[in-house]
Amino acid sequence: MQNKESIYSVNDLQLDNYNLLLNETLFHNANGYIGIRSAFEEGYPDGYESIRGQYINGFYDYSNMQQAEKLYGLAQEKQTMLNIADTQSIIIHLDDEIFSMFHGTVIASKRWVNMDKGVTGRYVRWRSPKGKELELTITRMTSFHQLTLFTITYEMKPLNFSGEIMIESNHDGNALNYVDVNDPRVAAEAFHYLTPISCELKKGASYITSSTSKSQCTVCSSVKNVLLQEHDRQFIIDNNNAICQMTTEGNQGGTIKLIKYAVFCDSIRYEDCRLQAGIELEKALATSLESLYKKQEDYLNEYWKNCDVIIDGDDELNLAIRYNLYQLIQSVGKDEYSNIAPKGLSGEGYEGHFFWDTEMYIEPFFTITNPSITRNLIHYRYSILEMARENAKIMGHSQGALYPWRTIMGKECSGYFPAGSAQYHINGDIAYSIIAYYLATKDIALLQEKGAEIIFETARLWIDTGNFYHGCFYINDVTGPDEYTCIVNNNYYTNLIAQYHLNWAVKIYNLLSNDENFNELIHKIDLKEEEIQTFQVAAKGMYLPYDPELKINPQDDSFLQKSKWDIETIPESNFPLLLHYHPLHLYRHQVCKQPDTIMAHFIIEDAQSNEVMRNSYEYYEKITTHDSSLSDCIFGIMAAKLGMEEKAFQYFCDSAHLDLLDRHKNTKHGIHTSNMGGNYMAIVYGFGGFRLKENGVCFAPMLPHKWRSYQFKVCYEDSRIIIIVEEENCYFKLEHGSAKKIYVYDKPFLLEDTVVVNRKINMKRKFSREI
Amino acid sequence: MQNKESIYSVNDLQLDNYNLLLNETLFHNANGYIGIRSAFEEGYPDGYESIRGQYINGFYDYSNMQQAEKLYGLAQEKQTMLNIADTQSIIIHLDDEIFSMFHGTVIASKRWVNMDKGVTGRYVRWRSPKGKELELTITRMTSFHQLTLFTITYEMKPLNFSGEIMIESNHDGNALNYVDVNDPRVAAEAFHYLTPISCELKKGASYITSSTSKSQCTVCSSVKNVLLQEHDRQFIIDNNNAICQMTTEGNQGGTIKLIKYAVFCDSIRYEDCRLQAGIELEKALATSLESLYKKQEDYLNEYWKNCDVIIDGDDELNLAIRYNLYQLIQSVGKDEYSNIAPKGLSGEGYEGHFFWDTEMYIEPFFTITNPSITRNLIHYRYSILEMARENAKIMGHSQGALYPWRTIMGKECSGYFPAGSAQYHINGDIAYSIIAYYLATKDIALLQEKGAEIIFETARLWIDTGNFYHGCFYINDVTGPDEYTCIVNNNYYTNLIAQYHLNWAVKIYNLLSNDENFNELIHKIDLKEEEIQTFQVAAKGMYLPYDPELKINPQDDSFLQKSKWDIETIPESNFPLLLHYHPLHLYRHQVCKQPDTIMAHFIIEDAQSNEVMRNSYEYYEKITTHDSSLSDCIFGIMAAKLGMEEKAFQYFCDSAHLDLLDRHKNTKHGIHTSNMGGNYMAIVYGFGGFRLKENGVCFAPMLPHKWRSYQFKVCYEDSRIIIIVEEENCYFKLEHGSAKKIYVYDKPFLLEDTVVVNRKINMKRKFSREI
Repeated sequence: MQNKESIYSVNDLQLDNYNLLLNETLFHNANGYIGIRSAFEEGYPDGYESIRGQYINGFYDYSNMQQAEKLYGLAQEKQTMLNIADTQSIIIHLDDEIFSMFHGTVIASKRWVNMDKGVTGRYVRWRSPKGKELELTITRMTSFHQLTLFTITYEMKPLNFSGEIMIESNHDGNALNYVDVNDPRVAAEAFHYLTPISCELKKGASYITSSTSKSQCTVCSSVKNVLLQEHDRQFIIDNNNAICQMTTEGNQGGTIKLIKYAVFCDSIRYEDCRLQAGIELEKALATSLESLYKKQEDYLNEYWKNCDVIIDGDDELNLAIRYNLYQLIQSVGKDEYSNIAPKGLSGEGYEGHFFWDTEMYIEPFFTITNPSITRNLIHYRYSILEMARENAKIMGHSQGALYPWRTIMGKECSGYFPAGSAQYHINGDIAYSIIAYYLATKDIALLQEKGAEIIFETARLWIDTGNFYHGCFYINDVTGPDEYTCIVNNNYYTNLIAQYHLNWAVKIYNLLSNDENFNELIHKIDLKEEEIQTFQVAAKGMYLPYDPELKINPQDDSFLQKSKWDIETIPESNFPLLLHYHPLHLYRHQVCKQPDTIMAHFIIEDAQSNEVMRNSYEYYEKITTHDSSLSDCIFGIMAAKLGMEEKAFQYFCDSAHLDLLDRHKNTKHGIHTSNMGGNYMAIVYGFGGFRLKENGVCFAPMLPHKWRSYQFKVCYEDSRIIIIVEEENCYFKLEHGSAKKIYVYDKPFLLEDTVVVNRKINMKRKFSREI
Repeated sequence: MQNKESIYSVNDLQLDNYNLLLNETLFHNANGYIGIRSAFEEGYPDGYESIRGQYINGFYDYSNMQQAEKLYGLAQEKQTMLNIADTQSIIIHLDDEIFSMFHGTVIASKRWVNMDKGVTGRYVRWRSPKGKELELTITRMTSFHQLTLFTITYEMKPLNFSGEIMIESNHDGNALNYVDVNDPRVAAEAFHYLTPISCELKKGASYITSSTSKSQCTVCSSVKNVLLQEHDRQFIIDNNNAICQMTTEGNQGGTIKLIKYAVFCDSIRYEDCRLQAGIELEKALATSLESLYKKQEDYLNEYWKNCDVIIDGDDELNLAIRYNLYQLIQSVGKDEYSNIAPKGLSGEGYEGHFFWDTEMYIEPFFTITNPSITRNLIHYRYSILEMARENAKIMGHSQGALYPWRTIMGKECSGYFPAGSAQYHINGDIAYSIIAYYLATKDIALLQEKGAEIIFETARLWIDTGNFYHGCFYINDVTGPDEYTCIVNNNYYTNLIAQYHLNWAVKIYNLLSNDENFNELIHKIDLKEEEIQTFQVAAKGMYLPYDPELKINPQDDSFLQKSKWDIETIPESNFPLLLHYHPLHLYRHQVCKQPDTIMAHFIIEDAQSNEVMRNSYEYYEKITTHDSSLSDCIFGIMAAKLGMEEKAFQYFCDSAHLDLLDRHKNTKHGIHTSNMGGNYMAIVYGFGGFRLKENGVCFAPMLPHKWRSYQFKVCYEDSRIIIIVEEENCYFKLEHGSAKKIYVYDKPFLLEDTVVVNRKINMKRKFSREI
């Protein structure tokens, strides 16, 4: 079975603001280091909005974040991912006419992304007002092989004329970040973050070096235009902008080919980013374009081999899933200086900050398909551990570390702390993801070097945050995942993940205690035996809200006291609620933005009976708006777990198409990487019933009845398992590695080559037993 | 018995920043309309801080209040009381020398406030660097008789020389508001709120008219200098500043007298404030200065007759109390356009906003001494009722009115809503104060015209805010008076006052239902019979947190779960805690800024047994920092009620001297009017055991053992009662009005002329019974 759906394309582009911005996002190029939004090379006329962005993952400046009331410890400065320099501009002059989609006649127009080749493309056939016809084929790539490199291959064919063509290729350091004063989810203030240091020409390439206003970072972008036929060339250059004008002869039916190389280097990764930009540009120019394309394809070939999901019976869905997985590898940072933002590198929503999304929605995918990427992401968290310790101090804690709710370089960037810094569960989320990585890989070295330190320091914070009272351990005044109820007491999700975290802190302490280097760590962080005991006692006494009448877990202590808000009665135009209701109004109602208790039931399923999980599901589903893109996938997974196939399928489909159909009406600000990770989970954890547990990996596959079959792969320890789910049976094949014990529908099997389990009978048995 | 302590003075002024700013506040002049801080007329040298303010009560401009995260409904603009124009500058030139306290030799220096005469004074004897000795006697007054008027009588006596003296008297429209970027309790941004419209001379007076930047208000100040001896005069004038230079001949031993008249008129009160300023100035000039002084004294004579408290046995304390009561009449607005701010008109702390302080700390004083002032304050609340309805809508409510937590003209100005708009108890507080006014005056007309409408509309909000669950009525996600725990569930204070409010809404409905105009109101606000029933059911089912083990009322649902924070262990320099700890850290601990449950026990004492009140007192006292100036007085009152005389006395003394001793280290930003009202309550409600109840007025006087006796007066309905408390007996005398039923130590008496009750025996009995 081979996945053929590797090209997503849009024909007959619509040239309105909405579609232009949407396509800038959908067809952006990124490689985890740089990201370039797909604006038209030639730009749009005045009056059209564009977010003409090019970003470096983890490259930031500080900006002021004025607090209306300046209370102690509130963040007053945030980090912002910067729009570096425009290297995508190419303007075609045909005598006194300039190519534009907005005048003359667009005869044909198409854009696509090829997910096997790792390129985006654009095709235009255009007739000028004076009747000149031109065909353009443009290919863009951000190289996975050379992360600093962005290329545009720009091919022009004069169809009904010959004559002089002037190509103007810009390199503009005056890029500004995008602003929307009305949406709290993007920046509200235009600001010149980057100050030009130099703009130079060297060996026919332009170099623009700029420094940030406050973060003391510098960045250099370099552009070289290679026009593959005879031409005149001149540069117009000022202190922050270099225009390369190339004049050449167009011949009817012939093709003019320009290759525009752009490289980006920043001072966070490179000691001398100007120097490095020169090296990187030379490196790119020394490789043939074909070879660069080939390496790109090889990289993706390997990627798909690890992670591809194949559905037999729904090509469109298959394509959507592939699109989502493609965006994940485009978005995720490839070094410890960066991570993966909710919008990846495709836009400025949430200003490029990193959240818990990484650990709870995205890492699960990488952990079982490309664990080395998860390792990077853990390295990143370790790199900011010291700042998390500082953050804990700011928040009044006498010990431990508290990870910032949103950050680029480690300092908290939450403007509104009740829906930000108060989300202490991020500590548990990070610990949970390290534990999951350990369960999947048994990579004890990472625990020894970094993971254990993170887990202990963050575990300590629970002890400092919660309180023993009448024999129970209570955690007050935190916010759970659902931001429609902030600063609550005993949030079920938080308390449950804290319990899991504390229990695992004890396990890891015992696991590592024989290691000779462990003492060093214990000494470094001054961890005492009594603390480990306290972890145990607190975990044991952890108070977990439960309502015996409804037989559900209330989201927090007072949740059930609140008014229910019939979300059916809310006008469509009032969603998402956060943009239309005062926070207190939301807090005072039983209404959820996203799964909270349901998320807890998903990630720590053994803590609760299926009956309570099912009751809770039914209870919360009615009051959840799914205003967050983190919602559908989890509801889908839990529907699958609880045997609600129709529901599971519907949620899955909604999640699969979230960006391609712009279901949240904000894809213009960037893709939703967390949903993309969640969408993968909805297949593997949802339909596949996959779980990583201490005693091994578990599966309980179901098959949506619209599909004939599906398959996915899971890396587990040294092995890779292929899972094929068909109507009658499911197959587990050991692709490589040593034999593994696996659980299928709760029964253990030793997987040496292939295990076949009758799916139909087992599924029926499973749900007839449980319901 | 007559109170002799009417002058508070400071000798040998200390000329450091701290004392200069403190004295600017302590010796400010105000009359409820205008307030002028007492800077030195001649100013301070560069490098000295001054808050050289002159304010009009209720005169404001809008300023931006940027929210770090712009959530729906958050206030993004606030009102700010403006610093109008400097009219207090007078500079003395002796040839080439200029009088200043900061060079030459200050031989004597003194400032005072005379609370019988209603003036402040300043005396200086000074020797210039070149040896000229000068004696200055300066008297300032803000007239109670003519509210727009401020006068300075400036007398100079050359002691050892004769010669030319040049007096420069400024009128400067360039006044700016004060800024402190580090204190959330004052403004953080300097801004030119006022733009000059005109600066003119007319009949020897200067007129500066300015308009606000956003609120579309204008203000005119006018100054006329009357120098009572031959002199040359010239004006230097620009578009926002008028300097009057008067040159005259000084004779050794003779006195030169300048009277500087300043009037302030604003467009909120006057259609044409420039015109009105002319009229007001003419009016002042047409009255002799002696006559103005006489009217001032008459006004205060009447004031003291109504409200004076006389303590026999502690003159210093007597003076402090008088000082406090004097500030209340200086600060309180005299019309419906204004109210009383926590700093009165003495400084810019809290930007001149009005809070619940008015109703719960200050009105109780006026209600029983000058009920017409309370009536004004209720008129003010009525004038912003429509905006309170708007505010309710912004906060998501479908009915009712929610008063803004802080405001000048009616719109919410809270920057941080968890400690602002979330304090829904303000609705209950306003209702409570109207009920108290009604109980004291039986002024049913005010209820009919305004009070009932406020009470019904605010009562409705409780129904829209709370929720019936399992037969109880719960109010979630509000903040009680204690801002160290925000957004809580079932705050005892809030729920109790809501219950009281709802019960009274029903009573008032029944009380007024026979009135012929009542239907009009019912129709106007569309109040339904079923709503009244719901009020009743909600009040009856109101959930009031109670802990059967500790036998206390917990502050809210989860308060007791939280860590106790031993405030003894907190370094002195870390108070007030709000300036040194992150809000979440405060919220997560059992620590209180001020009385919350204790306040509830005070205001609605019949809802709880003395035992529970005493347990609660002991519980909360240990964890209360008294970081708020609203704290000491209430703890004092409840200590008195519960028979803890020593404690009551100590709290009372702390409260009495709060500003004079600058106990909170922020009197430079203004006096603490709420504490001043609370301090009065600590005598009358505390020591006197006074309560206003439905069946009449009650007393249970105790006598601090350091005092021989004390007396106070209470207006009740058409009568005034004098209460004299001595060691053995207490006396109740009907000063005027009809006979009244009063309760003394819970026993009823008919007060026709005098009632004498044995205090000693009754007190002993009272507490032996209860303890």
